[in-house]
Amino acid sequence: MADQFRSRCAIASALEIIGDKWTLVVIRSLMLGATSYSDLLGAPERIATNILADRLNRLESWGLVESAPAPPGGRARGRYQLTTAGADLLPILQAIAAWGEAHLPDRWRVPDWFWNATPNDLLKRP
Amino acid sequence: MADQFRSRCAIASALEIIGDKWTLVVIRSLMLGATSYSDLLGAPERIATNILADRLNRLESWGLVESAPAPPGGRARGRYQLTTAGADLLPILQAIAAWGEAHLPDRWRVPDWFWNATPNDLLKRP
Repeated sequence: MADQFRSRCAIASALEIIGDKWTLVVIRSLMLGATSYSDLLGAPERIATNILADRLNRLESWGLVESAPAPPGGRARGRYQLTTAGADLLPILQAIAAWGEAHLPDRWRVPDWFWNATPNDLLKRP
Repeated sequence: MADQFRSRCAIASALEIIGDKWTLVVIRSLMLGATSYSDLLGAPERIATNILADRLNRLESWGLVESAPAPPGGRARGRYQLTTAGADLLPILQAIAAWGEAHLPDRWRVPDWFWNATPNDLLKRP
């Protein structure tokens, strides 16, 4: 059977899902507590709305993020949350953050809870 | 001073260096023992030569890979090797590999040494 990925390498395959400049920035924002589209759009990196919409669609289609639609008639917007597979990206983001702190000068300090968190912690938040 | 990155977030900044489909595939190949341009070009993902050349240039300019030029007059080609900062990407690749093995079916088995390796191990190889 033809594989949908470039190879069966776990690293190369995963990078076809998360290997771009923005996908893991969106995941980071969700891990830090963003829940709405406007929360995500308001991240300091100033993601363009078409890129954000595309990445959320991709993340939903890969089963890493799920959205709860807005309640009918209300003014509330939809909410986005990590799935189990999405929360399991946490060790990747922790490793990227550690590398960035070690090798890029003058970055913001990563909050202590982030280093100590587990994927399960991200799923238990209200 | 204006920052060269989108924000001072360590994750978002690092992704401007490694956040694409190919950069960490090249790093993976170097970690698995590739040393020459043709080794890298021969990886199973069939990277295009213009993309490989671009990523190697970027990796050298960021100080993650260094190249030793071919000796004059010989038939030997240049050699690429990870710098300390490049070898320090290992925990990111280990985390990506673990996520890929856990969430993508039917990937190749990651060799045991890879899980147990440290960045320093990658620098000590002949």
